[in-house]
Amino acid sequence: SFSRGMQTVTLIPGDGIGPEISTAVMKIFEAAKAPIRWEERNVTAIKGPGGRWMIPPDAKESMDRSKIGLKGPLKTPIAAGHPSMNLLLRKTFDLYANVRPCVSIEGYKTPYTDVNLVTIRENTEGEYSGIEHVIVDGVVQSIKLITENASRRIAEYAFEYARNNQRSSVTAVHKANIMRMSDGLFLRKCREVAENYKDVKFTEMYLDTVCLNMVQDPTQFDVLVMPNLYGDILSDLCAGLIGGLGVTPSGNIGANGVAIFESVHGTAPDIAGLDLANPTALLLSAVMMLRHMGLHDYGNKIQTACFDTIRDKKVLTKDLGGNSKCSEFTADICRRVQDLD
Amino acid sequence: SFSRGMQTVTLIPGDGIGPEISTAVMKIFEAAKAPIRWEERNVTAIKGPGGRWMIPPDAKESMDRSKIGLKGPLKTPIAAGHPSMNLLLRKTFDLYANVRPCVSIEGYKTPYTDVNLVTIRENTEGEYSGIEHVIVDGVVQSIKLITENASRRIAEYAFEYARNNQRSSVTAVHKANIMRMSDGLFLRKCREVAENYKDVKFTEMYLDTVCLNMVQDPTQFDVLVMPNLYGDILSDLCAGLIGGLGVTPSGNIGANGVAIFESVHGTAPDIAGLDLANPTALLLSAVMMLRHMGLHDYGNKIQTACFDTIRDKKVLTKDLGGNSKCSEFTADICRRVQDLD
Ligand SMILES: CC(C)[C@H](C(=O)O)[C@@H](O)C(=O)O
Ligand SMILES: CC(C)[C@H](C(=O)O)[C@@H](O)C(=O)O
Repeated sequence: SFSRGMQTVTLIPGDGIGPEISTAVMKIFEAAKAPIRWEERNVTAIKGPGGRWMIPPDAKESMDRSKIGLKGPLKTPIAAGHPSMNLLLRKTFDLYANVRPCVSIEGYKTPYTDVNLVTIRENTEGEYSGIEHVIVDGVVQSIKLITENASRRIAEYAFEYARNNQRSSVTAVHKANIMRMSDGLFLRKCREVAENYKDVKFTEMYLDTVCLNMVQDPTQFDVLVMPNLYGDILSDLCAGLIGGLGVTPSGNIGANGVAIFESVHGTAPDIAGLDLANPTALLLSAVMMLRHMGLHDYGNKIQTACFDTIRDKKVLTKDLGGNSKCSEFTADICRRVQDLD
Repeated sequence: SFSRGMQTVTLIPGDGIGPEISTAVMKIFEAAKAPIRWEERNVTAIKGPGGRWMIPPDAKESMDRSKIGLKGPLKTPIAAGHPSMNLLLRKTFDLYANVRPCVSIEGYKTPYTDVNLVTIRENTEGEYSGIEHVIVDGVVQSIKLITENASRRIAEYAFEYARNNQRSSVTAVHKANIMRMSDGLFLRKCREVAENYKDVKFTEMYLDTVCLNMVQDPTQFDVLVMPNLYGDILSDLCAGLIGGLGVTPSGNIGANGVAIFESVHGTAPDIAGLDLANPTALLLSAVMMLRHMGLHDYGNKIQTACFDTIRDKKVLTKDLGGNSKCSEFTADICRRVQDLD
């Protein structure tokens, strides 16, 4: 049948520029003849039984079946108590690893060249546990929760990633000099796991030292693994080095192949609907997705076409330094994808 | 008498290259005829009554009298349970504000120009409270403590600093979207204090967004104020932008004028005693100290001489890109200080 060999992906177009950049990605996938069937879903949270916020059942059901999601930017409604949609998705599907490759893009000038690193962020606990108390008036505590299981799991993910992606080193990022027990536990698990991956070099570095070294010479880093908040910070810092969130892909990985790939930039309401958005971050996230699904050839082809368009500098969206529309940028990539066949 | 108008400063030369760079600073102060009398003290912690670590009584007594310290790098002994010397000093003298001006140095090339910002870090609580527990085997919690008083105090310090140093804006750095209660309290206090400083612009920004924007365009920032850990990270990141810890001054400020100024780089044991160290960070910290003491003219003169030596590029230590010894670099600054008279 027509759909033989096709795999289903749950598409969450998102808000603001989300639909436009999702359309761009679908067009490029079509040009590349990528064997993907999209199932579009809206994930904006609803109040479920007992008043708990949850993603709508048909979106949950689609993800449970397809296991793979591609997601544009989501705006979190201002409604009181409404949870961050990003956090809710991570939680709902236990997406424990946030993976962000930061690779310099030829032709897109920043103060740095030859950046080629990956941040791997523990995505489920740490400072994001959400446990806070008022002790007495004017004294508040937030609890950072670190567990052996989550630490081992993310460390194993990082070393597997390094091994499977021909990367030679993993650096554990921590503040175990200050948080001796919690970061100490995280670090201990990294060390233990490192013992099983003698082919991958293991180093440890304080978060502050990583930040300092990162802006001085990011080329010294390869794979970095760290607790939740440190990953939030470092992944954005590293995105900045290569040109910002508009060109940085991201993947949230769970157990048993479940994963959601997403652009992490905002919804850009000011330019929504004007055909001005840059679809690169979502497209490169979709390339990560193709590789995750074992469809490397399609991924490579699309990535090459995208980077060729950027290097060529003739058809670029405004944020990339050009004057072209989203649809023109997309068409240029489509043409190149077809030429690569 | 000879010492009329002289003010006493407690000098903590520190370990490794500490004594050499302290000698360099003293020579330059002498050349500048700065009215400072140095009282040298060793602060390496000892075990006091009840087995608590404390700084030696004669060092404590000197600081209590002089109120002002200048400190080189300290190595924390490996003895079990020995506290970080830096943390112990901050605690002993309740040095609640860590202040780091990061200003691009003409002639010392980095990927960034025209950086001119100040990080102001809450120095007493937050993630550094030292409260941690094992809940059950494999589950650890660390407590981040945020208080109304410490938050108001640091916010007030930041706005006063901005006003007194002709700076036009203060940005509060936070993750109140995640730590709604603790960072929320910190942010609320910043907002309240901002009401009393209508002449200073107030903005708020997520820590991850600050990191991203910082590496893309640091010139957009002026004064930044934040909880302890965020300051640890951002102050090192910003130091990296202007050339690293070897050229970045730092001040730890307490109540009633008490303050310790320090270079925050390491003890560099590999080059200790070889007359190769770069005294710039300690010297610029000493310049901050002079301004703190109201001795602006001496501070400006020494800073000008130091920057002239660096801009001139003829006599530089190795880490600054030259071949000169610490003593030669120092002599060049001394000569210029005298010429400025
Ligand atoms: C939107 C926000 C809750 C989120 C976070 O803090 O994790 C974002 O910064 C991210 O990195 O995905
Ligand atoms: C040495 C260490 C305890 C310290 C810290 O984490 O605060 C250092 O990084 C600093 O910034 O002074």
